[in-house]
Amino acid sequence: MINYPIKRAPQQKQTNYANLGMTLESDIESTNLFYLNQKIAVIHKKPTPVQVVNVSYPARNKAKITEAYYKTPSTTDFNGVFEGKYIDFDAKETNSKTSMPLKNIHPHQMEHLENVSLQGGIAFLIVHFKQYNEYYLLPFHILEMYWKQQYDKEKGRKSIPYNVFKEQTYLIPFGYQPRLDYLSVVKKYLIKS
Amino acid sequence: MINYPIKRAPQQKQTNYANLGMTLESDIESTNLFYLNQKIAVIHKKPTPVQVVNVSYPARNKAKITEAYYKTPSTTDFNGVFEGKYIDFDAKETNSKTSMPLKNIHPHQMEHLENVSLQGGIAFLIVHFKQYNEYYLLPFHILEMYWKQQYDKEKGRKSIPYNVFKEQTYLIPFGYQPRLDYLSVVKKYLIKS
Repeated sequence: MINYPIKRAPQQKQTNYANLGMTLESDIESTNLFYLNQKIAVIHKKPTPVQVVNVSYPARNKAKITEAYYKTPSTTDFNGVFEGKYIDFDAKETNSKTSMPLKNIHPHQMEHLENVSLQGGIAFLIVHFKQYNEYYLLPFHILEMYWKQQYDKEKGRKSIPYNVFKEQTYLIPFGYQPRLDYLSVVKKYLIKS
Repeated sequence: MINYPIKRAPQQKQTNYANLGMTLESDIESTNLFYLNQKIAVIHKKPTPVQVVNVSYPARNKAKITEAYYKTPSTTDFNGVFEGKYIDFDAKETNSKTSMPLKNIHPHQMEHLENVSLQGGIAFLIVHFKQYNEYYLLPFHILEMYWKQQYDKEKGRKSIPYNVFKEQTYLIPFGYQPRLDYLSVVKKYLIKS
């Protein structure tokens, strides 16, 4: 799971394109920069929301925040536009070899992705299985099925099996440029023409 | 101009829906909440980007930001999805009775809106003429024309005349719920069916 504010060291907040491949987030950001420069798509990461409590003004034209706290994001991290279509997703990592735990996903993120999907937007997760170094695009409708089943006492499980990823979702090609070409998958499988 | 970080007092960062009508930003946020609840659209304000320099951990599970600075946003403040279409805009206010100064708009915001427009997204500004209490939806292509003209030595001017708003852009209805029904204007004039 990326982006859980408490676990994130401050220096990670500066995206450093010299360290490509270091983290899932920076791989996605470098991919988005490639898409932007090539005029393929306009997709940005949203800033991490911060609750500002105190600000001081050491100089007239400079505001210094002296007390603030990370807030839980109410939406996903990434959104934008690709060939006129609205794109919305979040990125998740897991160390597990057998499944992606559903606790990696916040309920408000599920609600947001559902709303996006109902509005005709393209909603998904990018899931990184670190042990295999594989990246999958998990469409919202498959995620939703497992999310709802977890509350079922008979067949409920708290994760999505790795086999489901292999058999029912889409492997994202990993390369040099773009790093993680998730829009090639979106174009091939998720856009109805 | 809203959202210029230095001028913003910290307490304004908490959107208070009891104070509807107080600021352009809160009017738009309350409109977006109405759209969300009515399943009309999913449009959110992006968090203000903050550069975190120092974090302390007064308790194990609590991160306290002790030094941070506002950063200039690289995009616009609002984006989302409406009937499958990507929507992207910023909000600007002016006290002038005769024109909207172009200096209210950052060059990187223009670049972003142009990129969005090239990708088939719906890009615009919401402009509040405070002296008239009128709200206009300014489509990107009109904004772009004036933006480019400002560098023309012959006919260049640094603002868009109020008359252009009255004659060539769209007045946004102001009401109780939704407060600022800009999507009715988008639907009527900007979506090609």
